[in-house]
Amino acid sequence: MTSPIAGLESRFALAKIIAGEAGRLAHDYFLRRETLVIETKADAHDVVSIADRNVETLIRDRISAAFPDDGALGEEHGLVSGTSGFTWVIDPIDGTTPFVNGMPNWCISIAVLHADKPVIGVIQSPCHDELYAAAAGHGATLNGKILRLDATRTIRDAVTGLGANNHVTPAEVAGIVERLLEAGGNFMRNGSGALMIAYVAAGRLVGYYEPYMHAWDCLAGYCLVNEAGGWSLPFPTQGEALTRGSAVLVAAPGAIDDLLKVAQLERKAA
Amino acid sequence: MTSPIAGLESRFALAKIIAGEAGRLAHDYFLRRETLVIETKADAHDVVSIADRNVETLIRDRISAAFPDDGALGEEHGLVSGTSGFTWVIDPIDGTTPFVNGMPNWCISIAVLHADKPVIGVIQSPCHDELYAAAAGHGATLNGKILRLDATRTIRDAVTGLGANNHVTPAEVAGIVERLLEAGGNFMRNGSGALMIAYVAAGRLVGYYEPYMHAWDCLAGYCLVNEAGGWSLPFPTQGEALTRGSAVLVAAPGAIDDLLKVAQLERKAA
Repeated sequence: MTSPIAGLESRFALAKIIAGEAGRLAHDYFLRRETLVIETKADAHDVVSIADRNVETLIRDRISAAFPDDGALGEEHGLVSGTSGFTWVIDPIDGTTPFVNGMPNWCISIAVLHADKPVIGVIQSPCHDELYAAAAGHGATLNGKILRLDATRTIRDAVTGLGANNHVTPAEVAGIVERLLEAGGNFMRNGSGALMIAYVAAGRLVGYYEPYMHAWDCLAGYCLVNEAGGWSLPFPTQGEALTRGSAVLVAAPGAIDDLLKVAQLERKAA
Repeated sequence: MTSPIAGLESRFALAKIIAGEAGRLAHDYFLRRETLVIETKADAHDVVSIADRNVETLIRDRISAAFPDDGALGEEHGLVSGTSGFTWVIDPIDGTTPFVNGMPNWCISIAVLHADKPVIGVIQSPCHDELYAAAAGHGATLNGKILRLDATRTIRDAVTGLGANNHVTPAEVAGIVERLLEAGGNFMRNGSGALMIAYVAAGRLVGYYEPYMHAWDCLAGYCLVNEAGGWSLPFPTQGEALTRGSAVLVAAPGAIDDLLKVAQLERKAA
């Protein structure tokens, strides 16, 4: 274990409080989304955009009030550099497609980077009242219960999560599905990549692969999976690279090699 | 509208009561599944099998107490013929993979057939506290709220649910995914076919396709989708055909033609 990071614990405590608060605000928008569409004469996508922006503003306000020298990167408002060495990486609502269509699989994702590594990862699933929380050296928990991955599980006796967006061609997605099934695996796609990565940390899925994700979609989940004893493909976090996307793969120990083959990737040191 | 079916309403009322009761029993097993694995020295799949059997027994007992002359077909205990003209078709837990892995997307599915048509469809999602209920000529509801599909939605501005099991080759599944994405669609797979069909009735998904399903997985959903104003591919329900599987496709009006192409099926009269 590396030496403790000064200022980690206070930020971890704040991240969990903010995730709960942001979850309640987002859930309120979720429950009122049909009324809001009528009231604002906007369409459902506008409502989720408003919710996204306002939830991110709430999160950023809480962070800057407590830690004014920290940096912050969010999906909605971009990167603000800091001087403390800590950078918060925020997805106010991950899974806007389920959100806008009235399905429960969406979440709030909050990561904190230090020395370019995700040292805090907090994911709140408001429709399921679940808080996933991890910090470097502190382990990972789900609603306070310690998460520890079962190293014996493989893609053949568990489920793998998959995701893709417009950066990936239909033929590429089809190829991933076919290789996973041919290898004896089974897949799920619930509409929120961040939530599916949290499910990997919780042992509900044995791995998650998506060819292209942004930092705010995956870094909280990376900390959760790593602290639960799983493996994650290195994700570029230095400087401007943080604002670009990259391939995301997380896995329980027994699923790493199979999923690297499914993803047609080489194993790199984390 | 066809003439009212004598005995429909009393069975509809009972189906909703049973679904709630069965949902509570199944949810109790779900919450205790890790303890049960330890206590019974069984593995997680044995626990879901026990839950499946006991939930189906509860449902069958309630039906035969109220309507001893009705037939019943369940995934666990097979077909028992009746003389009343009504046959109940039961999936005690649809989505055993999510159930066994601790994910919330599983449900209880109860259909009633009359003259070979699903005239009652009730689906209970215990982790989300949602009851989907429909009966021929009575419309479809979610927790009492009337469901009516938006005919303007297409696969390009909404999400399609997909499913597949071991009856379908990896290349077939990959082909379905590729054709849907090439047509401008997007897919979700939450692990429970019955629940995804209920989501079509609720307008959360614009359609659902699975190349091979059993009657107990889909018929409650068929009634829900039809009563919400959607379309369903005819499913064989006469005599022994009821115990065999078939292709399942349900869709909102604006998604039918696109999904028939994705599925490489011809349109048939429902």
